[in-house]
Amino acid sequence: MPMSRSRFEKFKQVLRQRQHDMTVVTDQVHKAQNISAMIRTADAVGIPEVHMVKPVRGHLVYHNTAGGSGRFVSTRVHPDIQTALDTVRGKGMRLLAAAWSDNAVSYRDMDYTQPFALVMGAEKYGLSETAMEAADAHLTIPMIGMVESYNVSVAAAIILQEAMHQRMRSGHYDLPDPTDAASRKQLFRWAQP
Amino acid sequence: MPMSRSRFEKFKQVLRQRQHDMTVVTDQVHKAQNISAMIRTADAVGIPEVHMVKPVRGHLVYHNTAGGSGRFVSTRVHPDIQTALDTVRGKGMRLLAAAWSDNAVSYRDMDYTQPFALVMGAEKYGLSETAMEAADAHLTIPMIGMVESYNVSVAAAIILQEAMHQRMRSGHYDLPDPTDAASRKQLFRWAQP
Ligand SMILES: C[S@@+](CC[C@H](N)C(=O)[O-])C[C@H]1O[C@@H](n2cnc3c(N)ncnc32)[C@H](O)[C@@H]1O
Ligand SMILES: C[S@@+](CC[C@H](N)C(=O)[O-])C[C@H]1O[C@@H](n2cnc3c(N)ncnc32)[C@H](O)[C@@H]1O
Repeated sequence: MPMSRSRFEKFKQVLRQRQHDMTVVTDQVHKAQNISAMIRTADAVGIPEVHMVKPVRGHLVYHNTAGGSGRFVSTRVHPDIQTALDTVRGKGMRLLAAAWSDNAVSYRDMDYTQPFALVMGAEKYGLSETAMEAADAHLTIPMIGMVESYNVSVAAAIILQEAMHQRMRSGHYDLPDPTDAASRKQLFRWAQP
Repeated sequence: MPMSRSRFEKFKQVLRQRQHDMTVVTDQVHKAQNISAMIRTADAVGIPEVHMVKPVRGHLVYHNTAGGSGRFVSTRVHPDIQTALDTVRGKGMRLLAAAWSDNAVSYRDMDYTQPFALVMGAEKYGLSETAMEAADAHLTIPMIGMVESYNVSVAAAIILQEAMHQRMRSGHYDLPDPTDAASRKQLFRWAQP
């Protein structure tokens, strides 16, 4: 069955709005459903690639159950957090760690129109010391209940939705069709049955 | 071990900030991790009670894995959506359904300082016709990727976080200590070891 024109147009539209200066790094997050939900959210806000660090205890149980989004968001697994952070820093991204600390700022007070990598901590242990120290800023989401944290995929989505909101307002998603070789290659890959 | 003073103060503070005119209704959502994450989010934004409708197919697999929040958020299971909606309407809440439709509004354009119940659809089938039609408004969260929806607990959190933001700004969380009998009873229950 040949691909419909409208699906092809959708691919082009989605590729056009991908934000190459925005990513997520997961610091030993290990539950499949959390990883899947984060990849699905990444797709929804236009993140083309997600970086994951393998848990030291247990293993990364990630299957492609992200509502099919696994096909549309690339994933890179790193052996340790330092390598992951070096990689995204190398692309000019600031490191924004979702974490509580004395100098944390409320997530709505951050400017997400600049390049950034959102670093998320593990379900049980939170962020590593390495990530806490390397971060350019710590972001917190207010909570007024008894429980001390949000589910990690929920926390990531709240912050990324704010980032998307800011980028919509500033016109980041209204860009011309991508004409570079990488985008054409991606379009070709997605269009494969 | 007697309960520490600071924990008791925390209970009082949390109870004081509970928003009795704000709730969530789940319309046949059935996955345990989604229900748990929503209860945890409810606790975080100050929702005292969540309403759930049993799935017709399959069953509600909810165990208390919501990071302990199950103890601090009451849950009510209803036999069908009509009963659930009647219940929250009876408490004077508007019905806000998270759903796409021709007259949906973007979730940030809604006023959440008024009493409301946020109605969330099932993982696979979305919202029932009954809920769609009964709703006073349909809310959508923008998405610009290939996937058609967010995970349900992620979608709920994004909307509830906006509600919390608006209510913080308008002083809804700065209320005097609760002195009514119901609050005293709740405080007593929580304080039990
Ligand atoms: C379940 S939490 C980790 C809880 C862990 N016990 C701790 O103390 O860090 C998983 C991750 O979600 C993010 N997170 C959860 N709630 C958050 C909040 N209110 N503000 C900022 N980040 C949050 C953080 O990245 C955290 O490391
Ligand atoms: C996984 S979605 C359901 C998808 C289902 N296939 C459908 O077409 O409705 C589960 C629920 O999350 C909520 N939801 C998910 N993404 C949303 C969005 N972008 N805007 C509003 N609600 C959303 C809706 O309540 C939806 O019924």
